Amino acid sequence: MGCSPSDAELATQVLVSADLRGVDSHGVARLIGYIRLWENDRVNPNPLVKIVHETPSTAVVDGDAGLGLVVAPKAMEIAMRKAEKCGTGWVSTKNSNHYGIAGYHAMMGLEKDMIGISMTNASPLVSPTFSTERLLGTNPIAVAIPTGNQPPFVADMATTTAANGKLEVLQRKNESAPSGWIQDNKGEVSHDPHELKKGGAMRPLGGDREHGSHKGFILGSVVDIFSAVLSGANYGPWVPPFVSFLPMPENPVGEGIGHFAGAMRIDAFRPAEEFKREMDNWIERFRKAETVSGQNKIIIPGDPEREMELLRKKEGIPLLTPVYEDLKTLAEKFSISFDL
Amino acid sequence: MGCSPSDAELATQVLVSADLRGVDSHGVARLIGYIRLWENDRVNPNPLVKIVHETPSTAVVDGDAGLGLVVAPKAMEIAMRKAEKCGTGWVSTKNSNHYGIAGYHAMMGLEKDMIGISMTNASPLVSPTFSTERLLGTNPIAVAIPTGNQPPFVADMATTTAANGKLEVLQRKNESAPSGWIQDNKGEVSHDPHELKKGGAMRPLGGDREHGSHKGFILGSVVDIFSAVLSGANYGPWVPPFVSFLPMPENPVGEGIGHFAGAMRIDAFRPAEEFKREMDNWIERFRKAETVSGQNKIIIPGDPEREMELLRKKEGIPLLTPVYEDLKTLAEKFSISFDL
Repeated sequence: MGCSPSDAELATQVLVSADLRGVDSHGVARLIGYIRLWENDRVNPNPLVKIVHETPSTAVVDGDAGLGLVVAPKAMEIAMRKAEKCGTGWVSTKNSNHYGIAGYHAMMGLEKDMIGISMTNASPLVSPTFSTERLLGTNPIAVAIPTGNQPPFVADMATTTAANGKLEVLQRKNESAPSGWIQDNKGEVSHDPHELKKGGAMRPLGGDREHGSHKGFILGSVVDIFSAVLSGANYGPWVPPFVSFLPMPENPVGEGIGHFAGAMRIDAFRPAEEFKREMDNWIERFRKAETVSGQNKIIIPGDPEREMELLRKKEGIPLLTPVYEDLKTLAEKFSISFDL
Repeated sequence: MGCSPSDAELATQVLVSADLRGVDSHGVARLIGYIRLWENDRVNPNPLVKIVHETPSTAVVDGDAGLGLVVAPKAMEIAMRKAEKCGTGWVSTKNSNHYGIAGYHAMMGLEKDMIGISMTNASPLVSPTFSTERLLGTNPIAVAIPTGNQPPFVADMATTTAANGKLEVLQRKNESAPSGWIQDNKGEVSHDPHELKKGGAMRPLGGDREHGSHKGFILGSVVDIFSAVLSGANYGPWVPPFVSFLPMPENPVGEGIGHFAGAMRIDAFRPAEEFKREMDNWIERFRKAETVSGQNKIIIPGDPEREMELLRKKEGIPLLTPVYEDLKTLAEKFSISFDL
């Protein structure tokens, strides 16, 4: 595409980290999608990522239409530099694109004993409670928290009942979706994982009003506002879609898509060693939680992904045939040797 | 109790704001509970609320065992002062007590064109996904966002499927709870709203794993960690309970309960007028959303509470007989004239 070697390496690292962590939907499987954006002139391969407004603890960053995979880590670096100086740093980014796995960006602060927070808005595929319109994205929130002897607390969640990746798994297996995940174009519960291509929508976390979907809608809305209304990116139904089956929205209200990044230095609150000791105790107590019959442990955020990463670093990353074929096609298109 | 007149007025304001907004479970109905804490020597009526550690954008506040109703607004004031100077302010509070309605604290920044964020941990009544133990509180998150012509965006949500107040309504009506709200002491789905007194638990937002309850668990955990592990308060199952049917936990891991407050100055990101214009547009677009059959609008966060406030300011606040009786009992106990 013409990215600089360092940007290409950074983008690769973000994608491969998703595959290593078992979040296959956000890994190299998406490479062909980023290429499609570039072919449609929606990605600038050589962006000048710059601060357009700032205070000691905040900044708005213009991503210059770069790959989110490159823009978001640079925005998080800015948040971390601000946190070093004044305790915390908060960066809202406009004019960006799909940024891959949210957890990668949140985890950047861990080594420096910082809590990292990352959010982004995304393709409008989610309907607010009681609506038939698709007005929000799956708008994820990731939070990474340093620990001592225990592995870090790493949460990375879509604000919908189920992430898009889980729907894709059902599509491949031709299995039906549980109620509360999706609705048809009239807003009725649907179990068809292909519903999104027929005008249906994903539902906010909670699934329906009785089960708190207005709270999932709140979370998705806050992510949208922090990422895009604070920065000047497109929000709500105006977010330029990553998926190819949605048209570009007319009359944009901002530039590109938006992200939000936060970094909080632990020792801006209390000595890092003290905090990490208490975090270890927090995690150990929850690990020891008595379980319901048929389960032998509760899941601490970050555990499944870390276990998958250990396994895949040893045994490699399995690729589905369609992903393998996509990568081969791309290699041919760009005249790159392909020896997978 | 011996509070200073200004503290008593502040606490009253927080309680009455809950009643005005229709959040009856967090209003004067709770007064007798705060008195009970004081009678058990758990509340210091004259706390010296002070900063024990700070950076330009952060502070840890010691609530000196004061009423959360008094401590939390003071902590939010500190966050707002920091935001005035360096863009944002973030305050984690220890050694506090139950703080009433989260939305009150978050809304404090609105007049100064700041986004306000408020969280607190709470009585351990919630089980993580797959567990039978009660290890977290309903740990609410409130976010208040300034607007122009539209009323402000005000979200205030427990991180459980349903807030405790909703269970109390079912208890009074002797109605059964929908699945996903509560579980019995073996972790099985229960519909009995009295289950908490029999060793049962509330469930995190999502209700079960298939519907994303691990995400509700994540949210409740993050609130707990930001409120208590960052500040040095008690966390998880060690949180001193507000409800009278739970014993005080042994071997505390910190001081009192914990809150977390955030204030972000809008113009630390972009001119406030510009932001508020876009927020108006955001809200207007969502208000116009097409609805499912049988609904005539979607709910913008803050709308129901604001409509209730308008009504109750005009027509007064209805009190249930048991609440009226409690207030009368308290008036007699403290020799206060009672002419309701």
